[in-house]
Amino acid sequence: MNISSLLNPRSVAVVGASEDPEKVGYAVLKNIMAGKPRAVYPVSLGVTSVLGLQAYASVSDIQAPVDLAVIAIRADFVPDVVRACGEKGIRACIVISAGFKEEDAEGKKREEELASVAREYDIALLGPNCLGILYTPEDWNASFAVGKPRTGSIAFLSQSGALGTALLDWATKEGVGFSTFVSLGNEAVLNERDFLAFVRDDPHTKAVLLYAEQITNGPAFLSALKEVTAKKPVVVLRAGRSIHGASAVLSHTGSLAPSDAVFTSALRQAGALPVDSLRDFFSLAKLFALNIFQNPPTSLLILTNGGGPSVHTADCIDLSPSLTLAELSEETQTTLHTVLPPMAGLHNPVDVLGDADEERYTKALTILTSLSHIEAIIAIITPQMMTHPKAIADVFVSFHTQKPIIPILMGGGAVAEGRTSLIQNGMVSFSCPTDAINALSILSHRKKEALPQKHTAPSTKRMLTYKETTVLLQAQGLTLEGILVQNRTDVAKACAHLKGPYALKYISPNVVHKSDVHAIETNLADITAVEIAWDTIDTAVKKIVPDAIPEGMLLQTVAKGTECIIGMKRDPVFGAVILFGLGGVFVEILKDVSMRIAPVTKEEALLQIQEIAGISLLLGARGKEPTNLSALAETIAKLSELSLAHPELQEIDCNPVFASAEGVKLVDVRLIS
Amino acid sequence: MNISSLLNPRSVAVVGASEDPEKVGYAVLKNIMAGKPRAVYPVSLGVTSVLGLQAYASVSDIQAPVDLAVIAIRADFVPDVVRACGEKGIRACIVISAGFKEEDAEGKKREEELASVAREYDIALLGPNCLGILYTPEDWNASFAVGKPRTGSIAFLSQSGALGTALLDWATKEGVGFSTFVSLGNEAVLNERDFLAFVRDDPHTKAVLLYAEQITNGPAFLSALKEVTAKKPVVVLRAGRSIHGASAVLSHTGSLAPSDAVFTSALRQAGALPVDSLRDFFSLAKLFALNIFQNPPTSLLILTNGGGPSVHTADCIDLSPSLTLAELSEETQTTLHTVLPPMAGLHNPVDVLGDADEERYTKALTILTSLSHIEAIIAIITPQMMTHPKAIADVFVSFHTQKPIIPILMGGGAVAEGRTSLIQNGMVSFSCPTDAINALSILSHRKKEALPQKHTAPSTKRMLTYKETTVLLQAQGLTLEGILVQNRTDVAKACAHLKGPYALKYISPNVVHKSDVHAIETNLADITAVEIAWDTIDTAVKKIVPDAIPEGMLLQTVAKGTECIIGMKRDPVFGAVILFGLGGVFVEILKDVSMRIAPVTKEEALLQIQEIAGISLLLGARGKEPTNLSALAETIAKLSELSLAHPELQEIDCNPVFASAEGVKLVDVRLIS
Repeated sequence: MNISSLLNPRSVAVVGASEDPEKVGYAVLKNIMAGKPRAVYPVSLGVTSVLGLQAYASVSDIQAPVDLAVIAIRADFVPDVVRACGEKGIRACIVISAGFKEEDAEGKKREEELASVAREYDIALLGPNCLGILYTPEDWNASFAVGKPRTGSIAFLSQSGALGTALLDWATKEGVGFSTFVSLGNEAVLNERDFLAFVRDDPHTKAVLLYAEQITNGPAFLSALKEVTAKKPVVVLRAGRSIHGASAVLSHTGSLAPSDAVFTSALRQAGALPVDSLRDFFSLAKLFALNIFQNPPTSLLILTNGGGPSVHTADCIDLSPSLTLAELSEETQTTLHTVLPPMAGLHNPVDVLGDADEERYTKALTILTSLSHIEAIIAIITPQMMTHPKAIADVFVSFHTQKPIIPILMGGGAVAEGRTSLIQNGMVSFSCPTDAINALSILSHRKKEALPQKHTAPSTKRMLTYKETTVLLQAQGLTLEGILVQNRTDVAKACAHLKGPYALKYISPNVVHKSDVHAIETNLADITAVEIAWDTIDTAVKKIVPDAIPEGMLLQTVAKGTECIIGMKRDPVFGAVILFGLGGVFVEILKDVSMRIAPVTKEEALLQIQEIAGISLLLGARGKEPTNLSALAETIAKLSELSLAHPELQEIDCNPVFASAEGVKLVDVRLIS
Repeated sequence: MNISSLLNPRSVAVVGASEDPEKVGYAVLKNIMAGKPRAVYPVSLGVTSVLGLQAYASVSDIQAPVDLAVIAIRADFVPDVVRACGEKGIRACIVISAGFKEEDAEGKKREEELASVAREYDIALLGPNCLGILYTPEDWNASFAVGKPRTGSIAFLSQSGALGTALLDWATKEGVGFSTFVSLGNEAVLNERDFLAFVRDDPHTKAVLLYAEQITNGPAFLSALKEVTAKKPVVVLRAGRSIHGASAVLSHTGSLAPSDAVFTSALRQAGALPVDSLRDFFSLAKLFALNIFQNPPTSLLILTNGGGPSVHTADCIDLSPSLTLAELSEETQTTLHTVLPPMAGLHNPVDVLGDADEERYTKALTILTSLSHIEAIIAIITPQMMTHPKAIADVFVSFHTQKPIIPILMGGGAVAEGRTSLIQNGMVSFSCPTDAINALSILSHRKKEALPQKHTAPSTKRMLTYKETTVLLQAQGLTLEGILVQNRTDVAKACAHLKGPYALKYISPNVVHKSDVHAIETNLADITAVEIAWDTIDTAVKKIVPDAIPEGMLLQTVAKGTECIIGMKRDPVFGAVILFGLGGVFVEILKDVSMRIAPVTKEEALLQIQEIAGISLLLGARGKEPTNLSALAETIAKLSELSLAHPELQEIDCNPVFASAEGVKLVDVRLIS
């Protein structure tokens, strides 16, 4: 099937053409006639002319060859008209009429009939139940969308007519243009894959937006998609992502693989850019309108006349997994310094200050656009007293050819002229930096290198001794489990006081990470095992940490329960911050911790505990007994009190804490002052 | 210190008043004079009048009492002028002038001098380096912000002047009004806490927006904040959230508690609503402008004239942790059916169809606003052929008093009149449903109940036998570890072929979850232990699953490495979906899995493996040797091939898979057809 006649026919019949402005047959005919000259044949019963053109009672009455029929009549007449088209040799139809499978069982039958007629005559049929199609390179608009969309490089394929017309109208106002818009309708014959294949090869299309509600053939869709994404970015907004939405579109999906997660994975795998929000869909359209397509910029510079908005923008860039703030060399800063006022910000963000005029923006951009390591410039205008948004916007236009400028014009009426001027010069603007950064981040989707973790503590810190620690804990009603044994000869006595199995730990204020230096042995069944462990530990520590100051060894009953951590750090602004998390992989790998500023009451602590992602483990998942959360919360509250009572403590690290149905056991506590 | 004179003075001196429109002293004086009548005294050297008012050479020359001085002169003159104000008995000053601590060391000294003069005379001083203040209930604007902001119920406190002026300008265009705007400047004397205390008690303020760059006293800030949030919602946009931003604002923060996480926790704890994006900040302002404050609506109904936008909106609501789509009763649907066209959507979303006019929206809203369980209506207009956005917007206005209507007018020029009409009637509109739903979600921040997990498999599914399983695996070059032992007497022979320690597992196609029925024993040291385990398992399974079909027991060497899972599910649209994750808590508690649509090549599988959150565990975290990712990827690719070669397989579940530096071991594989 050849779909080129849908996009650029030489001759077209409009079946259902009308002079009544409330009728679709009027709107479509008007839009077609507003384009470049083509042979147009209105087909309408009982009239001799429509909008000044000779009218025909049927397509078969048209003597000349016809490339395409656009059909906007009652649904029950459509199959016969399409058959008539086929007989006449018309090989492309756009069926705008509704009243097919979206309506009822009868409509569904009607659609099947329509499809079979189209196949019989090899007709490339778009619709039914669609808004039509437009293709700006050939000045062709066979849709009843409101207004005239701008010419541009974006192809927009939509499985929703309403979303299509809303987005086109929005885009026209915002200066975003399109190469083509296809309202896919019910996809009785042609579907999204046919048009993906078209936009893949269309030289006027540089990026694709797809609004997808239903995909009938997943694997075929993915392979069609992959062929496009190899050449052009494809943004997909998915509908039916939620349970309510999905239940309408898909059914019987496996529980481990919810359809949204599968769809997202599938899209990424095919190289497409899935978005979750219409706002991002809009914002990506704007980036495309700024000629940002493949190889999106990731090393960014912020140019601003206002501090606050630029700090926020810097935050968004810095926190994006794929974007970075470009560094400016000393040399560049010196050059900037010679042309900008003394107070101007010379790092990235470059702040030309609140009283900056167009000349100052020009001076800065002259220097900044010449730097090859900057891939795009986020150029912010806030409306201040001396600001001339239009003149500054015009500066952006003049530099945009050298380096992508992404204009952020913050405000309303005061920056309106600047926005308009950008549009008149073929650019667009954002009103909110967040929108632009989100879109850039999606476009350049990849992961930043994780930062190496710091393990060393500054040497000014001191770990409290066992004695100091237990005294402070006891004052808050907290207990460090176990008995401190100072001599090997006292081990047996200590064992008599505790149940086995045992754990034995070397205690010293300069042995911080016990397991690193073999200062701990656990699961010791009896006295003999403990005594052997004593010797093993003693030998190991003496060898690895020769200057360890021995306080003895701590004998404990091996604790049961879920490993947790409770900690405290001092924040320079908020003071004592209490951390809670699950031990092991949860805190080390997943950073699954919740925080509260002290004082943390027991009630507050209960909320804190329930904030962690792994909370179900404490509530009894994996066959465990539910943990005594009340006891756990009480421990947190007591450690909060300890933090406030002793401001000299810089850190508290209780790791692990064993929490079970019986209660909470502190088995290792480090207090650092 | 009394700050009321800053917000509603009876008499005001403007020091630095000017007739030059480029001067701040002109803009401020004009804005003050545009308000309600007050005694205004321009102070300016060498002139006798400014803008028709008598001018004074100094504040001491003014004979009448003066409540407030607004100062916009060169920084080095400011401390002396403030002293003169003090001498004259003026107890409030707004210092707009810049050139203080933000500039250099000299400026810092100047600011300290300024603060000490203010304290000496007990002067409530706002600034320096600020935009000024405005308070609409008293028609008071002592700022040089561009334009005249609307009257409203939002207090906006900003630590950035540029952001302040941009947001005010934006708000004026969008119809958002303010009770007060305070540009906090350098906070030499008064700071954000003083104004939090004011807005807490201000009867004209119903919600607060705070843009925060630096908080000098964290605990005092939190307690001031808490007192406001008890009465009014407070939205905080934080700057300096990222490493780059934070390094400029805070320093020496503990590594386990990054400042942004602490700040967010602190804000939540104080009952405030932290937002990460200026877009959300704007959107929340709009919700407030629609009189949505405390007790935000969470049970929502969507009313629409377009399918696509409403499905997307439903998705956003459904996926929000705090919002729900209200259910409509059969009765309500029947009532709606009598007044709407036959094809109208009667569930939530209620779709009045593309040709809906204002009358049809009225009919629907008459029914829907009367339902008490619906807390707000998301009312969408898309511009279609028969749509009259202004008339429909006016319908929204008339119903808004009965039930909160949140208007979403999608598009540009075609809906502009509707937007304007809403603003003229004291409402606002959103252009994108995502913005509104995000804001509602933030405002009603809390967690939805987690859905119960499904554990039962439909009975039509069949687990393949050991033999069938191993045949299929072997065909792909995969091996299920171990030896199947059919009789207890063969145990010793089997042990001779494998190294210990051993694991023993009961194999039966109707024993799916082995650990649930004691069908597995592990860490068996020798033949004796294995034989004992045989009897234990046999007894247990016979008792718990009397109809178990025995295939034998599988003897394995206990595998080492990191526990992973590899699985396959069939998606109705995309076919075989391959899942990969880490075993244990990672998959069960954290759902940390990555997915790919088959076929998954080895290269693709490597990407898939690296997508999981816990990837560092496989790369050698926690002292482990790095895993052989290549072998792991190969296993995934082979299982993908198996899925495609055998479409009759509905599920594959390899759990656990042990991955280590040596390679990959499959120790439990369930194939389900």
